Amino acid sequence: MLKTYELIDRSNSVFCSFIVCSAILVLKMLVMSTLTSIQRFRTQTFSAPEDVVFSEGAEVNFNNENINRVRRAHRNDMENILPYLTIGLLYVLTDPLPWLAKSCFLIATIARLLHTFVYAVYVIPQPARAICFFVQWFITIYFAIATIVFFIPYF
Amino acid sequence: MLKTYELIDRSNSVFCSFIVCSAILVLKMLVMSTLTSIQRFRTQTFSAPEDVVFSEGAEVNFNNENINRVRRAHRNDMENILPYLTIGLLYVLTDPLPWLAKSCFLIATIARLLHTFVYAVYVIPQPARAICFFVQWFITIYFAIATIVFFIPYF
Amino acid sequence: MLKTYELIDRSNSVFCSFIVCSAILVLKMLVMSTLTSIQRFRTQTFSAPEDVVFSEGAEVNFNNENINRVRRAHRNDMENILPYLTIGLLYVLTDPLPWLAKSCFLIATIARLLHTFVYAVYVIPQPARAICFFVQWFITIYFAIATIVFFIPYF
Repeated sequence: MLKTYELIDRSNSVFCSFIVCSAILVLKMLVMSTLTSIQRFRTQTFSAPEDVVFSEGAEVNFNNENINRVRRAHRNDMENILPYLTIGLLYVLTDPLPWLAKSCFLIATIARLLHTFVYAVYVIPQPARAICFFVQWFITIYFAIATIVFFIPYF
Repeated sequence: MLKTYELIDRSNSVFCSFIVCSAILVLKMLVMSTLTSIQRFRTQTFSAPEDVVFSEGAEVNFNNENINRVRRAHRNDMENILPYLTIGLLYVLTDPLPWLAKSCFLIATIARLLHTFVYAVYVIPQPARAICFFVQWFITIYFAIATIVFFIPYF
Repeated sequence: MLKTYELIDRSNSVFCSFIVCSAILVLKMLVMSTLTSIQRFRTQTFSAPEDVVFSEGAEVNFNNENINRVRRAHRNDMENILPYLTIGLLYVLTDPLPWLAKSCFLIATIARLLHTFVYAVYVIPQPARAICFFVQWFITIYFAIATIVFFIPYF
């Protein structure tokens, strides 16, 4: 049986698959800041008095719905993607079935990309967003439970 | 002396203890989304216009105290549990005393479970929440300092 | 060629450099909670009714600009530092050029320390905060792309 740390290797396609999907999700999260900035400049609405100097006619305001929508999507990313990244790495260390693990990584990544799209780019009626949310949510729950079940005998 | 990566193994009970406690905390964080949803449906209060279609009589409103309480607890989780997960993994790589490390993981996990309970499930007067917060906060500070002290000679 | 997991070792100065810088950023994030508490007690402004018992004359209020400024800085930390910590660790596993990787870790860490200073401690006119933000933001983007490029052939 392999040592656990031997799974952290470029010869392990599950590990590489997790890394590529994770890096895509990190890029997606970083783009949220750009989306927020675009909305702020487009609507001339800022959150700090010192930011108003960027252009004339700008104001400090917290009630712009376009900005708040992007910010809610960004917060939702933090609530769901960040725990997923941690537990996904630990799940890789349980040496899961390759096809199962890779499918989960791929589906979760696509679900979160679509979640952002239907929430903050082009609003699509529910249950579009709810489905995207729950797909990745259940995958994260599965990762956490599979990790606990695997490691608890060595606890 | 062990190689650092050899600590990432199921034969290392400190590592397994960290993983199990981390997975429990991740599950706890994911449940916060469910708590928020329950409060939203119970009070028919949503944050996006497209969510109002789920049921009649629903409205968009950001001032529901029950919902905001769960959201503050969830945000507090992100502020504290997510950095803890990262630094906890790095702390495992310093090969700490097993009884000390395992006690810290267990106490921090229980503290965060209680924090959520007294904040968002059944409100208990202060300093209940402050104690839960500081117990895990000081453990995270200790992990960070212990990690810096261990690795700075190899910097 | 080294196995990927052999990079997770105290003999790898890039790895140690990442760990020390990460632990400093985690400490910085934890201090944000303290800054918020200091502002809450100084202005006697709390977010939950049960916190008001700490002192007389206190009230529940969400519109204190000093507190909201610290909270925005803290949220910005979560949005940027937490993904950086994950992708930074994966970037170390690509066996990057030591001088390049170490410079990135050092610059990103200093940029985030300055970001907090100019945002929440002593407000300095723009573009001070924007520069601090973008320096670390671009480094994180670079880490993510370098990681994808390295691991995608093994996908």
